[in-house]
Amino acid sequence: MKLNIALLAGDGIGPEVIDQAVKVCDAVASKFNHDITWKPALTGAAAIDAVGEPYPDETHAICEAADAVLFGAIGHPRFDNDPSAKVRPEQGLLKMRQKLGLFANVRPTFTFPSLIDKSPLKRERIEGTDLVFFRELTSGVYFGERGRKDDGNTAFDTMTYKRFEIQRLAKKGFEAAMTRSKRLCCVDKANVLESSRLWRETVQAMEKDYPEVTVSYEFVDAVAMRLVQWPSDYDVLITENLFGDILTDEASVISGSMGLMPSASLGEKASLFEPIHGSYPQAAGKDIANPLATVLSAAMMFETAFGLHEEAKTIRDAVNKSLAEGVVTEDLADGAKAYKTSEVGDWLAENI
Amino acid sequence: MKLNIALLAGDGIGPEVIDQAVKVCDAVASKFNHDITWKPALTGAAAIDAVGEPYPDETHAICEAADAVLFGAIGHPRFDNDPSAKVRPEQGLLKMRQKLGLFANVRPTFTFPSLIDKSPLKRERIEGTDLVFFRELTSGVYFGERGRKDDGNTAFDTMTYKRFEIQRLAKKGFEAAMTRSKRLCCVDKANVLESSRLWRETVQAMEKDYPEVTVSYEFVDAVAMRLVQWPSDYDVLITENLFGDILTDEASVISGSMGLMPSASLGEKASLFEPIHGSYPQAAGKDIANPLATVLSAAMMFETAFGLHEEAKTIRDAVNKSLAEGVVTEDLADGAKAYKTSEVGDWLAENI
Ligand SMILES: CC(C)[C@H](C(=O)O)[C@@H](O)C(=O)O
Ligand SMILES: CC(C)[C@H](C(=O)O)[C@@H](O)C(=O)O
Repeated sequence: MKLNIALLAGDGIGPEVIDQAVKVCDAVASKFNHDITWKPALTGAAAIDAVGEPYPDETHAICEAADAVLFGAIGHPRFDNDPSAKVRPEQGLLKMRQKLGLFANVRPTFTFPSLIDKSPLKRERIEGTDLVFFRELTSGVYFGERGRKDDGNTAFDTMTYKRFEIQRLAKKGFEAAMTRSKRLCCVDKANVLESSRLWRETVQAMEKDYPEVTVSYEFVDAVAMRLVQWPSDYDVLITENLFGDILTDEASVISGSMGLMPSASLGEKASLFEPIHGSYPQAAGKDIANPLATVLSAAMMFETAFGLHEEAKTIRDAVNKSLAEGVVTEDLADGAKAYKTSEVGDWLAENI
Repeated sequence: MKLNIALLAGDGIGPEVIDQAVKVCDAVASKFNHDITWKPALTGAAAIDAVGEPYPDETHAICEAADAVLFGAIGHPRFDNDPSAKVRPEQGLLKMRQKLGLFANVRPTFTFPSLIDKSPLKRERIEGTDLVFFRELTSGVYFGERGRKDDGNTAFDTMTYKRFEIQRLAKKGFEAAMTRSKRLCCVDKANVLESSRLWRETVQAMEKDYPEVTVSYEFVDAVAMRLVQWPSDYDVLITENLFGDILTDEASVISGSMGLMPSASLGEKASLFEPIHGSYPQAAGKDIANPLATVLSAAMMFETAFGLHEEAKTIRDAVNKSLAEGVVTEDLADGAKAYKTSEVGDWLAENI
């Protein structure tokens, strides 16, 4: 198969972890006889420095033309304490999501048996957790009208949803539930928000198309609580953009190893794969960052974007083997020998 | 001192737990020579049944005239799967908050040494946690304009904040920080929301009035994560209404004993005290609900509304003694003898 992949390394540790994912993908491609063309493109603070824009048109053209996008991380401390800065790396992220139409952010949360004790949660609470969030990513309060009134003394943001935006996101959730335990939880705040009532009514109307799926409706505050009490109660969760932002980050704590958590963002055509961790600027350039979340994002890419399940499994098996044999970066080394980012990548490529 | 207290028992287990708080308050009053007049009033589903309104004008008049309000719980399953019901108990809650001007919801989160192992979080993560949330309670997306467009296919909610609303809430947070570890965290989403940028700019401008307080600014998604990773990192947190709804419920998990967590809602004049747990309809009428959160809310009332610190301490000491001696309801009994709700109340009153 010919695979045309846009490569957006981004900021901080992004380039280092992306390098390892490339090694792994190339190894898988040569094993299974695929032909990958990598198309690097600028994004984030790196793009601001080069062309004054966090998501340049040229980058967009490359992403649009590609079969999938592999993404590192975005963000630079230089912009952090200046929320009013005119150009910010995050704007690039939001523009990219919108222009590529990446309306569904998919975040699996599961535990690794060998790492389960790293979680702040007790083993008996998290064992067997295997849930996945579908977060709406191109609408809601992120993209509604906002501004100031009264000489700047009043500020407003608008949380807006259209029925079709809810439908296409919910469809992904229902379809995923069909391939899993057939349980779907719609997370909203329908006791207060009109947009949540539209969510609930839209999802309720879709239930008849998936008679095998058991759907529950829970308020976001209750889910924020139960998610850390009994996470294994959940299977597929669907939710709007802002709730998803908060809950997926909260859920990332469950596994205890954020450095291993992949994600996908899907549109009608485009798809993007990235680790859930940030650009971790303190570690940039030191060859110490954990590349596994990016490598596992590449596995999601093979599976989700290309339908290549064997290839995805090969990557995951290599990752599990590296964990079992202790070929890990310092965050997972627990006093034993810590491997460099690049060494972990080399080891994985060799073991594929 | 003459104390005029409005008593809103509400729904579900509300009346039972309120009864115990009344016993305890009466015992404290007789010990310290205060004279309490209780003014019972209807609210919630109980009020809907009686007069068709969850927060009747008569109840409001009683609350307004009182020195403080002691509140049980609101909510009835009958309304739960019908988010579009015309009259809902929750509307009573929101109306009450707005009409009494209760703009600051105060939620302490701490651990009880004897109950620490009940938390889903590991002991070493939560030991020493003693944080308090100040959640804005009368503005934001709860009270902004909302509605439908396009034949009902588009729904919107507006998150609005005025500078003075942020200032009066932040002031409570700064003042609390001054009496504690002098650390304040402002939780927002200033990388996306204009209202959050107004929050940040307003709080930043107030820093100079509290030079001893160290202020940090964190994004809500990051806090949702850190709160269950290292809760003891936090001291005072201030945030807007919706973020506060989600984060305070998440934080309630830390202590592992929701049945013990009190809260206060403060206005310029009025103040209301209530347990953070809900109406727990499955347990209603069974004399099994844990009354301690309501009793500890009464302690907050003595301290916060009346400035009676000895009285508050007397209540807390009695609660700690009941925990130490195992005079507890079934949720805390751990196989040992479980006391009835009313027995715990009697025991506390006798031990004051
Ligand atoms: C950086 C920020 C704008 C972004 C978001 O809120 O969506 C991030 O938190 C995320 O979840 O990808
Ligand atoms: C019942 C509901 C409207 C309410 C809220 O969202 O404020 C509740 O969750 C709370 O936190 O008191």
